[in-house]
Amino acid sequence: MKIEGIGETTIRVRYAETDQMGIAHHSNYLIWCELARTDYMRERGVGYRDLEEGGLLLPVVDARLRYRSVAKFDDLLTVKCWVREIGSRRVIFGYAVERATDSRLLATAQTSLMALGPDQQRTTIPESVRETLVAIPDPVRL
Amino acid sequence: MKIEGIGETTIRVRYAETDQMGIAHHSNYLIWCELARTDYMRERGVGYRDLEEGGLLLPVVDARLRYRSVAKFDDLLTVKCWVREIGSRRVIFGYAVERATDSRLLATAQTSLMALGPDQQRTTIPESVRETLVAIPDPVRL
Amino acid sequence: MKIEGIGETTIRVRYAETDQMGIAHHSNYLIWCELARTDYMRERGVGYRDLEEGGLLLPVVDARLRYRSVAKFDDLLTVKCWVREIGSRRVIFGYAVERATDSRLLATAQTSLMALGPDQQRTTIPESVRETLVAIPDPVRL
Amino acid sequence: MKIEGIGETTIRVRYAETDQMGIAHHSNYLIWCELARTDYMRERGVGYRDLEEGGLLLPVVDARLRYRSVAKFDDLLTVKCWVREIGSRRVIFGYAVERATDSRLLATAQTSLMALGPDQQRTTIPESVRETLVAIPDPVRL
Repeated sequence: MKIEGIGETTIRVRYAETDQMGIAHHSNYLIWCELARTDYMRERGVGYRDLEEGGLLLPVVDARLRYRSVAKFDDLLTVKCWVREIGSRRVIFGYAVERATDSRLLATAQTSLMALGPDQQRTTIPESVRETLVAIPDPVRL
Repeated sequence: MKIEGIGETTIRVRYAETDQMGIAHHSNYLIWCELARTDYMRERGVGYRDLEEGGLLLPVVDARLRYRSVAKFDDLLTVKCWVREIGSRRVIFGYAVERATDSRLLATAQTSLMALGPDQQRTTIPESVRETLVAIPDPVRL
Repeated sequence: MKIEGIGETTIRVRYAETDQMGIAHHSNYLIWCELARTDYMRERGVGYRDLEEGGLLLPVVDARLRYRSVAKFDDLLTVKCWVREIGSRRVIFGYAVERATDSRLLATAQTSLMALGPDQQRTTIPESVRETLVAIPDPVRL
Repeated sequence: MKIEGIGETTIRVRYAETDQMGIAHHSNYLIWCELARTDYMRERGVGYRDLEEGGLLLPVVDARLRYRSVAKFDDLLTVKCWVREIGSRRVIFGYAVERATDSRLLATAQTSLMALGPDQQRTTIPESVRETLVAIPDPVRL
């Protein structure tokens, strides 16, 4: 069941993403969250590519991750993504990485993004973007 | 149209895969080819995960890539994968990376994999695997 | 000046680590922290490789990163690493990523690692390792 | 002994670069070669960063790699880099990846780079760059 305000991205764990512990390396979760976030935004009509071409950058300024269980090679994952908070200059996304086959929660995370203009100076998130990125209560405890 | 003996994997170019030239970094193509190859094998019932658990390793011993055009962030790609040659100890896969929207050919590649046993010594590819990995003529010029 | 209890690792930002914003992608910082941590431990005689061969795994179970400024291609970075806290089953490392040329602080981070035995069950950190990983007050605010 | 015309870069294999076979994933060699190449060029006064800021891009258009032995976590590697051929629009670099401790040859590779101008159109390599990148006979068989 898809819940309003929550994006879902499916990811297959790549061989190159494993490490010698036999699990997906913990740095990949930031990349998977980014993938889920760009999917979330594209589906809502505010694609990153369009935003960047329009002069708005959204670099990550803060990230927190809790690893609860491991992902293995070839696992199918569901990465849930939602907006936790949004202000005039900053937006905080939340994430839950689940194993698709049994919905086991593997990790939770949040990233804060800051709005920068074309000259890298701080700017405000355009009203049209803010209207689209609506914060919801966390569906899981981060 | 799907052609017998050719696997097709769809990949969305990730932000993390871009570099400061504004294109997907050339090292990612090896990872995408690997993803296409593991998809190809899983779909034919000889999943890498099962092979490795059964004691067969297939490390890449040779790789060649030709980059013909660039992939950009958020592009949808189709990676075609097929078997070029297969012997008792080695299999060569061919790949064509295309932009999904207009079928433009972005890169071609081949990788050779060698069969290793659980103790890293050279071994032969099991008959059951060889029967599944049937070589076909190259669908594009590599 | 090297401070007791703080490891320092020098890293050159790789082209492949940049993204299309023209900066090092934020996921690399977790990898750089790991590199600093493994250097820190090797220099103190408790190398990861030896620990793993001895049956002790130290997976990351929690990570927090604050990005304060950007790293660019070819920048030389200094990653400082120290132990923030250590208990019987868990150790928390702190990190400061600086630009080497002017000591500008680019990011701070911490990661928590949990001790696992060879069968992936929770275990205690051996006394010999605990004696080596001595916590110090944070040299910078995280 | 350092040989005229051959650059040498030292690399420590990162944990994140390993895969579940317990070896450095084969895609990393392209990144290591790039690192050796940018070191080679910087040391000869034609740094990539300066070239790009001056409007010259050098994307990789062809790559070939032969993997002869494996690199493991924490191994110190020496990546040798030299110019194999240089023309008006293209330069071919050769590489040898060795384990530093015993000089064992782990891989050889070559990459071809094409000169592109600021608008991505083909251009010629500036005379000043060509004078610096002098081709030498291969020190090892590729």
